[in-house]
Amino acid sequence: MKLSDRIQAMQASPVRKLVPYATKAKKAGKKVYHLNIGQPDIQTPSVFMEAINAYDTEVIKYSFSQGEPILIDAICDYFRRDDIHFEPEDILITNGGSEAITFAAIAICNPGDELLVPEPFYTNYNGFTGEVNVNIVPITTKAEDGFHLPSEKEIEALITPKTKGILFSNPGNPTGTILRSDEMEMIARIAIKHHLFIISDEVYRGMAFDGLEAQSMASIKGIEDHLIITESVSKRYSACGARIGAICSHNKDLMKNILKLGQARLCVATLEQIGAAALYRLPDSYTKEIRDEYQARRDIVFDALQQIPGVLVQKPTGAFYMVVKLPVDDAEKFIIWMLEHFDVNGETIMLSPAEGFYATKGLGKDEARIAYVLNKDDMQKAMKILQAGLLAYNNQ
Amino acid sequence: MKLSDRIQAMQASPVRKLVPYATKAKKAGKKVYHLNIGQPDIQTPSVFMEAINAYDTEVIKYSFSQGEPILIDAICDYFRRDDIHFEPEDILITNGGSEAITFAAIAICNPGDELLVPEPFYTNYNGFTGEVNVNIVPITTKAEDGFHLPSEKEIEALITPKTKGILFSNPGNPTGTILRSDEMEMIARIAIKHHLFIISDEVYRGMAFDGLEAQSMASIKGIEDHLIITESVSKRYSACGARIGAICSHNKDLMKNILKLGQARLCVATLEQIGAAALYRLPDSYTKEIRDEYQARRDIVFDALQQIPGVLVQKPTGAFYMVVKLPVDDAEKFIIWMLEHFDVNGETIMLSPAEGFYATKGLGKDEARIAYVLNKDDMQKAMKILQAGLLAYNNQ
Repeated sequence: MKLSDRIQAMQASPVRKLVPYATKAKKAGKKVYHLNIGQPDIQTPSVFMEAINAYDTEVIKYSFSQGEPILIDAICDYFRRDDIHFEPEDILITNGGSEAITFAAIAICNPGDELLVPEPFYTNYNGFTGEVNVNIVPITTKAEDGFHLPSEKEIEALITPKTKGILFSNPGNPTGTILRSDEMEMIARIAIKHHLFIISDEVYRGMAFDGLEAQSMASIKGIEDHLIITESVSKRYSACGARIGAICSHNKDLMKNILKLGQARLCVATLEQIGAAALYRLPDSYTKEIRDEYQARRDIVFDALQQIPGVLVQKPTGAFYMVVKLPVDDAEKFIIWMLEHFDVNGETIMLSPAEGFYATKGLGKDEARIAYVLNKDDMQKAMKILQAGLLAYNNQ
Repeated sequence: MKLSDRIQAMQASPVRKLVPYATKAKKAGKKVYHLNIGQPDIQTPSVFMEAINAYDTEVIKYSFSQGEPILIDAICDYFRRDDIHFEPEDILITNGGSEAITFAAIAICNPGDELLVPEPFYTNYNGFTGEVNVNIVPITTKAEDGFHLPSEKEIEALITPKTKGILFSNPGNPTGTILRSDEMEMIARIAIKHHLFIISDEVYRGMAFDGLEAQSMASIKGIEDHLIITESVSKRYSACGARIGAICSHNKDLMKNILKLGQARLCVATLEQIGAAALYRLPDSYTKEIRDEYQARRDIVFDALQQIPGVLVQKPTGAFYMVVKLPVDDAEKFIIWMLEHFDVNGETIMLSPAEGFYATKGLGKDEARIAYVLNKDDMQKAMKILQAGLLAYNNQ
């Protein structure tokens, strides 16, 4: 029997495909600093488990397909703090932000349809769309422009009758770039003019540095029927393993149809929703504390990278990633070499090759994504290991 | 903007679409016995929460895309009790049995490809396949044959170049039918001859009555590369809200590719996997106790239905469902009427219309699925309400 073309065409996750090398390094006794994956070391707020333990768990029942009302209400209130008004029927709880994007892709695209996505982009967008036969058409952004969007004209030139929407993360993974107001207005104009949906992946919202704010796309007026926001507790609340996300839209027809997808898979894990509701009710002071911590980590990483000869990097303003150009031909080969052949006192680091974050062939080959998800001491050590590793690699 | 054809073509869940009527009935003060959904009232074994509470929850981290090793090992051991040997690499943990079937459909079918499915079938198969553009071709089975399969010739006549596999649940939802050995052998022969995959949904395995055993399809030799088993803790361990399932296959190429789907959505909720591992390690005495309980409930329901004039039903031998022919023209109308206009001392019942469990138009219109998931007293009361309701409905 042959497997389907669509599954064979899927790439293995660039974030996860090198894991076997890390496993081998660890078996050989090395300590590996994981900067390859957005798994923060920050404690999940204790309200998460407290809420679960206070819940009646005699029978772990199906939740509602739309999600637990207590969580939906908490998300409505979370948006309301920024004067954004969603009603409960505008929200459906998903298995992480991942399922939210897959649901959006299924709901607005038939097989062969296209989504415009600024590249480099969160590499799993390839998976969420490829498995349901939706094609990504990249809008190339460049490090030298701080990964900001090209002109309206350049974007419009990519639109075909098959284009159904624009998908992006803001703040950006892997770039750490925050969209400016004029970019958000431009996206809105394009969507209205060309009848496109806007899928705004806002799972890093709140993580904006240097006094900047990452505005929700929902703050732009006049695109209510176009806009689909995807949400998650993973990053903001350091609860990646909870797999709780949401899809939010004022488009009633869309949400009515998305509910059919929710019903097909019945529901999201009940207990995790109860815990997540408590996370969304954490005060703004929590988000501020987290943001300050990541800003400090960013500064350490950015300052250290500035000192490494041949490394090119722009200072990111949000999320907890940056894309760096390394003085190597092939970043993936270098990353594997770091795991297999290099250590400083028994310690090494793991990065993500950035090539998989681009759809355009040939881009990103000498780039890597760094996730600054470890504490300041660890990040400092990791940057020293990177510097020593690059020197040794290029002196071979 | 237009929504996609595929989402517009999806049906609302026949199990869940009448929920608003139940909600309204409850608001009006009625008690509703839910026989419409496979949500058992049996307590989730306490080992589930005990394992979660014993787990280090300081940071709720991503799990592995393949799943937590402790759960995968527990599933291997669960199968080993029946002399079925899966290695850890043959198993991937999924968001319930639902995601396991969606993954299987994506992996073996391109858009427009077909799966043969004996009808009536678990209605959500429509959703799992429709959302990824896979078409179900029904193999009609009949109440008068105990919902057993038709002849090999009749099944083979349905096979086209687009047919990629055969999908079925055993024990069957909604029929409660257990496949005989000769039927399993026939499926194996057809799969080998026509190069088809076999997706055997075994989430009700262990729930077999009257001394029968529901054999796993994995006990049939010579189909190792054809067979995909889907599993879940929902029913056997009364943990529907945990959303823990698995996809199991000896086909290495298939599992390697399925892992890409797993990586795309990162992982399944970490805590629920830890809890589920404890469930799979429950002794056989647990399953026996559950089975005896459901057998007793079945007997109550079957005996009661035999007493209702005009009701036709075959005694099912597994799972916790039965399909009954009601003396009404349109079962859905009757079910809504029971919620809106009928009660016995303030109590009524909710069933699932069976029409949505058939792919062939016109079949099942006068049938309903009864899930005997409530305790014996409740089931007895519910059957009395059904009898009184049918009488009143037909005397209008």
